[in-house]
Amino acid sequence: MAAGDLDRVVNLLARLPGLGPRSARRAMLHLMQKREALMVPLAEALASAARSVRTCSTCGNFDTVDPCSICQDPRRDPTQICVVEDVGDVWALERAAAFKGRYHVTGGVLSALDGVGPEDLNIDSLVARAAAPDVTEVILAMNATVDGQTTAHYIADRLAGTQVSVSRLAHGVPVGGELDYLDDGTLTQALKARQSL
Amino acid sequence: MAAGDLDRVVNLLARLPGLGPRSARRAMLHLMQKREALMVPLAEALASAARSVRTCSTCGNFDTVDPCSICQDPRRDPTQICVVEDVGDVWALERAAAFKGRYHVTGGVLSALDGVGPEDLNIDSLVARAAAPDVTEVILAMNATVDGQTTAHYIADRLAGTQVSVSRLAHGVPVGGELDYLDDGTLTQALKARQSL
Repeated sequence: MAAGDLDRVVNLLARLPGLGPRSARRAMLHLMQKREALMVPLAEALASAARSVRTCSTCGNFDTVDPCSICQDPRRDPTQICVVEDVGDVWALERAAAFKGRYHVTGGVLSALDGVGPEDLNIDSLVARAAAPDVTEVILAMNATVDGQTTAHYIADRLAGTQVSVSRLAHGVPVGGELDYLDDGTLTQALKARQSL
Repeated sequence: MAAGDLDRVVNLLARLPGLGPRSARRAMLHLMQKREALMVPLAEALASAARSVRTCSTCGNFDTVDPCSICQDPRRDPTQICVVEDVGDVWALERAAAFKGRYHVTGGVLSALDGVGPEDLNIDSLVARAAAPDVTEVILAMNATVDGQTTAHYIADRLAGTQVSVSRLAHGVPVGGELDYLDDGTLTQALKARQSL
């Protein structure tokens, strides 16, 4: 390997999820070949994002403003709060453009194995938000994993004393999915929650 | 998707080889979670590399100095030049630490389909270097692809009039490789080039 500067970039790139040492070197070569078009803009965009992007103190989303643009947007329904595990899930739901309420990012899931307890997640702030008079529904959109569902149950318990109605995402056959490839749990849930036509 | 700064980083990351839109978003979330430990250093390392790293005017390698540290190193054998397609191949050979001569990076391979002709590659400069009195051997280390071998043949032809001996890397069974998984061409070459014990 050549110069220290190159080494440093390769070592840092290799720490990104989805990149290893080999793909980090390939990425570095690509960056060097597109120095003005890609490398310099990426360096500037990273520095600018590191300076300007902050965590929304209301919902935990990332944005350049605090409260984030979703929390500030008067067109978003303030009566619904959708609870997700991390900011990537906010992005996924925003891409689907299926939800017009506001979000709450827990920042992870309860996990006895990893030693993550309720105090490590943004759950107290959710309970406080849910107590506001204009909030009527909390939608638990945790991942359909064991830890995700455990966390959803815990949050539902915590909200049991409040006036909000608590719901969760539907389980079922993914759109475009084939039955033969689905696991038993999904098929069972899809059958249980069948809808009349 | 959220703020413009985040969008810009994700879009630029998605243009790296090996990353698509989804993995670029994952990388961005990871960067935001390790802002001080990873994002800021990466931005600085990229900016610093973009400023300081240049192409060696002798061999085409990347380094912060020109001529590069390999071309400048008096301990490297000046009689041997190893010709490779791109800088990644220099890194690969340097990792193997099997070659103590100097390099020449063509910057690609001849390709009629992609419209890459000899004038698009650093071949004239190689012929000029090979004409120097202290150079005795040119080792063609192009990839074992059709275009790589075509390029190697073309370079060998160009060097036919000079005093240097021209060689190429051996074909054969990769170390640790199993015969059953090798293609016919490799097996044929390995048999032809068998070595007596």
